[in-house]
Amino acid sequence: MDIRKVFGANARRFRLALGLSQEAVAERMGVDRAFVSSMERGLQNATLLTIWEISQALGVRPADLLEEKFSKVRS
Amino acid sequence: MDIRKVFGANARRFRLALGLSQEAVAERMGVDRAFVSSMERGLQNATLLTIWEISQALGVRPADLLEEKFSKVRS
Repeated sequence: MDIRKVFGANARRFRLALGLSQEAVAERMGVDRAFVSSMERGLQNATLLTIWEISQALGVRPADLLEEKFSKVRS
Repeated sequence: MDIRKVFGANARRFRLALGLSQEAVAERMGVDRAFVSSMERGLQNATLLTIWEISQALGVRPADLLEEKFSKVRS
């Protein structure tokens, strides 16, 4: 399991469930859209503080973003 | 809530539940004991890959390390 891919897939799923664009999430976080895009593709080795910011932008718990059972990432 | 403190408190709690020393966890992770110590005190802004390594060293799920309900950290 690549935790970066699980994290990214979860972030994407929660974003889509809210009907938000990557742009909208990026704006909430004060980061660039490209960061949100690469994060959702599992390319970012995000830190705890970034995980916290994304969880607040998406209105979910930080732990939810690391739940393997949510993400449909093939390990 | 400071996610670094929640993460550190959880890591400490799981380590103690296993009866492991910081030294033993550091060895399992291939890091220095001082890193484990500062991490448990909430001073490390750990990355996803480090969270994964610690979860494997402690035999817990990565999401468990970010669960607020486990840690007794006053926010």
